[in-house]
Amino acid sequence: MKLTKQNLSERAANDYDVIVVGGGAGGLSVGIYLQRYLLSSLIIDKGKARSFWMQELHNYLGLPPDTPGRSLLRQGKEHYLSLGGDILDGFVEDIVDEGETFAIRVKIGRHDSIYQTFRSKYLVAASGIIDYLPELDNMRNVYDYAGYNLHVCLICDGYEMADKKVGVFANSLSNAEVVFPLGWFTPYITLFTQGLFEVADELRQKLQENGYQLVETPIKQFLGEDHQMSGVELEDGRVIGLDAGLISMGSKYHANYLEKFNLEKQGGNLITDQMARTSHPRIFAIGDLKVGLNQVVVAAADGALAATQIWRDLRRALGAKRPVQK
Amino acid sequence: MKLTKQNLSERAANDYDVIVVGGGAGGLSVGIYLQRYLLSSLIIDKGKARSFWMQELHNYLGLPPDTPGRSLLRQGKEHYLSLGGDILDGFVEDIVDEGETFAIRVKIGRHDSIYQTFRSKYLVAASGIIDYLPELDNMRNVYDYAGYNLHVCLICDGYEMADKKVGVFANSLSNAEVVFPLGWFTPYITLFTQGLFEVADELRQKLQENGYQLVETPIKQFLGEDHQMSGVELEDGRVIGLDAGLISMGSKYHANYLEKFNLEKQGGNLITDQMARTSHPRIFAIGDLKVGLNQVVVAAADGALAATQIWRDLRRALGAKRPVQK
Repeated sequence: MKLTKQNLSERAANDYDVIVVGGGAGGLSVGIYLQRYLLSSLIIDKGKARSFWMQELHNYLGLPPDTPGRSLLRQGKEHYLSLGGDILDGFVEDIVDEGETFAIRVKIGRHDSIYQTFRSKYLVAASGIIDYLPELDNMRNVYDYAGYNLHVCLICDGYEMADKKVGVFANSLSNAEVVFPLGWFTPYITLFTQGLFEVADELRQKLQENGYQLVETPIKQFLGEDHQMSGVELEDGRVIGLDAGLISMGSKYHANYLEKFNLEKQGGNLITDQMARTSHPRIFAIGDLKVGLNQVVVAAADGALAATQIWRDLRRALGAKRPVQK
Repeated sequence: MKLTKQNLSERAANDYDVIVVGGGAGGLSVGIYLQRYLLSSLIIDKGKARSFWMQELHNYLGLPPDTPGRSLLRQGKEHYLSLGGDILDGFVEDIVDEGETFAIRVKIGRHDSIYQTFRSKYLVAASGIIDYLPELDNMRNVYDYAGYNLHVCLICDGYEMADKKVGVFANSLSNAEVVFPLGWFTPYITLFTQGLFEVADELRQKLQENGYQLVETPIKQFLGEDHQMSGVELEDGRVIGLDAGLISMGSKYHANYLEKFNLEKQGGNLITDQMARTSHPRIFAIGDLKVGLNQVVVAAADGALAATQIWRDLRRALGAKRPVQK
């Protein structure tokens, strides 16, 4: 059921088999599988998964290609609740490993917050990432277009940019490298650095060889209407027309609560085994937090794997039969 | 487009970037991703994927839990065709590795068959498995219930069998072992061997310890109506009432066309790397053919991985920019 400040007391004493941090595609999928293995689970969701921002999920098998990300999330949440799963809007502040269980301290409510500790045998980290966006004086102007034709994922939306005039907005030399795989989809590319980093001679030359433009002047604002970005106005007053944009400024990982566990990582991503288990035997990581492709369908599959492995673990530990109190 | 005997000549001279064998969940997902990477693909489908038989897909994120497997397949096929992918009803008879390309000989049409050879740079094996069913004199009687409450997958349908009286239909000692994980979901289990194998003393004792029944008499027929199996009638006339069934008789791998390649396997399953590549650098395997969980969402994610890796390979080989003729 959906937990709230009001009904919290009904569940607060409960130990769960599994607590899932994050209610995006991965978190909902693992929750659905866990409930179907007759395990008890709680999803703690601070809201606004990366897929929530996707206006159209173009590549998810089984859904029409104009399905908004939030529709998938809504359906998944309903599905999970129908299986008896618990879900709570909250923010995980701290986790203590007590050996057999984790004690998970959650902040509930942005205003007049209350704090509640929940316990579980297993933890699934499904809290994902969120993309850094260009910083303008008027951030509303960025949000107007992000997720429409101002994209953040080449793999998801390269197809939408095919043969279009695309602006790439990068904040570092390594993030600027995305212009080259983007070149598979379109030859009409302008790289905007906003003066945020020094363009190395090698990159400058490679851009030139490929016929790509380079603009180092900061951006004043995006232009367009009805969520369709049509170009940028620079600080010096120049206007550059564009059909689409690709933001490549890195991502923030929502995983502060895991820091104390010193889990094995590769770059910023958690290393997991074939069943999504991290280097801690009772912590699983699924979706964008882990090494691999940041795709909704991959996160959903990770959820199936993690839930299945946790079920196998518990089945072995408890001797195949479900404990009677279930 | 959908290729037929009539319009085949329009495409027969084409070399594809990728040919996908199998139009189930994995094959359609890889096709959608490939087309979105602006690669050319052909799916060769002999029809009736394992998910086609599923009356309700209970655990696929984003779809209501009463969605039939065939609805997912229909939506996926429409999605793939809308992206310009080619699909052909046919049976892959032989594949020759020509070094840069595969030559794939396809039999089209069950009657008045014609044979056509297609070529591709990469091959994706997505032809899956199909479960062996109990053999009765009247096989129609088995099909009446299979995929309804006569299940073939514990992971998919354990939940549906919770606390029900379940018959397990096995054909070997190792396949009979499924009764023990099934014990997680229900204590009311009867194992039917049909006399197909010798029940070892150890199994006999373990069944007894768990309170499970054992029936070695062959089955005459399943009983029930409106696709709901309600029990079995044995050859000796006895009737045993059941609420559900689980068939555990192994699976046929649809992969004869791969035999000559001697790909690395574990048990009957192909070993693949993190991106679904087999031990042959230009052959990928996705879904139930490979090692891993036989789940629709996993097959769909495999498709995303395989397509992405093939795109990366081709992008590197061709120098990042798409060839002009595309």
